[in-house]
Amino acid sequence: MHVEDRGYQFSDGVYEVCEIHQGRLVDETRHLDRLERSLRELKIRMPMDRKALSHVLREVVRRNRVRHGLVYMQVTRGVSRRDHPFPSPEVQPALVVTAKSIDPAKGVKMAEKGIAVTTAPDNRWERVDIKTVGLLPNVLARQDAQEKGAQEAWLVDADGNVTEGSSTNAWIIKDGALITRHADRGILRGITRTVVVEVLAAEGLRLEERPFSVEEAKKADEAFVTSATKIVMPVVSIDGQAIGGGRPGPLVKRLRGAFRRHSELAAA
Amino acid sequence: MHVEDRGYQFSDGVYEVCEIHQGRLVDETRHLDRLERSLRELKIRMPMDRKALSHVLREVVRRNRVRHGLVYMQVTRGVSRRDHPFPSPEVQPALVVTAKSIDPAKGVKMAEKGIAVTTAPDNRWERVDIKTVGLLPNVLARQDAQEKGAQEAWLVDADGNVTEGSSTNAWIIKDGALITRHADRGILRGITRTVVVEVLAAEGLRLEERPFSVEEAKKADEAFVTSATKIVMPVVSIDGQAIGGGRPGPLVKRLRGAFRRHSELAAA
Repeated sequence: MHVEDRGYQFSDGVYEVCEIHQGRLVDETRHLDRLERSLRELKIRMPMDRKALSHVLREVVRRNRVRHGLVYMQVTRGVSRRDHPFPSPEVQPALVVTAKSIDPAKGVKMAEKGIAVTTAPDNRWERVDIKTVGLLPNVLARQDAQEKGAQEAWLVDADGNVTEGSSTNAWIIKDGALITRHADRGILRGITRTVVVEVLAAEGLRLEERPFSVEEAKKADEAFVTSATKIVMPVVSIDGQAIGGGRPGPLVKRLRGAFRRHSELAAA
Repeated sequence: MHVEDRGYQFSDGVYEVCEIHQGRLVDETRHLDRLERSLRELKIRMPMDRKALSHVLREVVRRNRVRHGLVYMQVTRGVSRRDHPFPSPEVQPALVVTAKSIDPAKGVKMAEKGIAVTTAPDNRWERVDIKTVGLLPNVLARQDAQEKGAQEAWLVDADGNVTEGSSTNAWIIKDGALITRHADRGILRGITRTVVVEVLAAEGLRLEERPFSVEEAKKADEAFVTSATKIVMPVVSIDGQAIGGGRPGPLVKRLRGAFRRHSELAAA
């Protein structure tokens, strides 16, 4: 990459992370839809047409021989002499695609145990609905969580409500209802989140799309996070307080299984 | 640069821009002080000791034969497999230093005419006191200004007060008093801003460090912005409304001259 890539000097770019399950991309269409939306919001062109990009993704996965893992794609506004406004005339957007293998047993093991989350004030900019590479606030929140022995940080708005995790969407379960914040401008519209909404409808489970506070979360029956990387991951403690007795609960387990079946169908 | 440089994937890095005047770095000590402070806030190590870094800056300026222009330095947390928390064990921070020549006549010409600014909501994260490369909100505000025929965007907080420009500090002058916001967490502590505060004290001019609204700014006698790149630059219109009859005023001109003399002393 070039040092004057605007992704490096201005965080002027967006990204997507897509799960690879059994050698295939999970929910590729939705990820590419969201990539196009992010680029559109920032007035960055697609670096190549969608069909070509889809081909590149598959080639990177194939050449790296990834059966289980992640493919990462990043598109920035391109290389130009450093100046805040968009380059004029427009330059070719820069594309990076990488793929890595992840041992699927690792995720299974983590899900059996569940993860701990901490909470931290959400101090990010207003357009977190765009999946930009400007992730420093997320990095700092996650590092803080890690220093406290947790695996994720939930971000909390000025009203005391959870917005989302540093790289996941946040969910709680109370009296059989699955509660998660509306996908408005305060959070990123997670692909896994969207799929879970569909899966739980198919499973006959009840959804409540609304904000929830940290206090409410601590009294929940179960809690979990969703992301392409963590899929459906049980949360067993919030700021050190055990949720559901400190063990993954039955509804989260059921949902994870149902999601996995969906992935296998989607990747097939 | 590596595609897994955390500056590229997470905007996990900071930068400084330092003016080169007559072949020398202006206010190098203050810029390196601020660089160290930014790094400390993010728990990134200095990429090399300060003396060595100072030597690198001079070498880059010398080898690029820059007499008038800018030196740009960027330090990121380094290269590591993509994961939000800080790499463990710690990796070597990545350093980029570039220098470019700028025709000094260009700045003089711009200052004779003055610049137009627009205003836009300040939608950035809370830690804008750290000089990070997470500049996308600034880029978008500046592009918006440019599309409206202006050269800078002033960012406005929820109370209707100007915080700062997309890459400058914002000032107004009313009844002989120079008004600029306190350098608190809402803005970056500009080096040029700090020097101007000293210069105007030496000139016997009156400083008022306080927030000012867009409405107040539109009724100001004069207005200007400060930055290492623009030095002291008169503002002659705000959102299309002329300031001081649409021409640079006497106090701004005097301050620019005084600042230039300071730079020559500081670089000597």
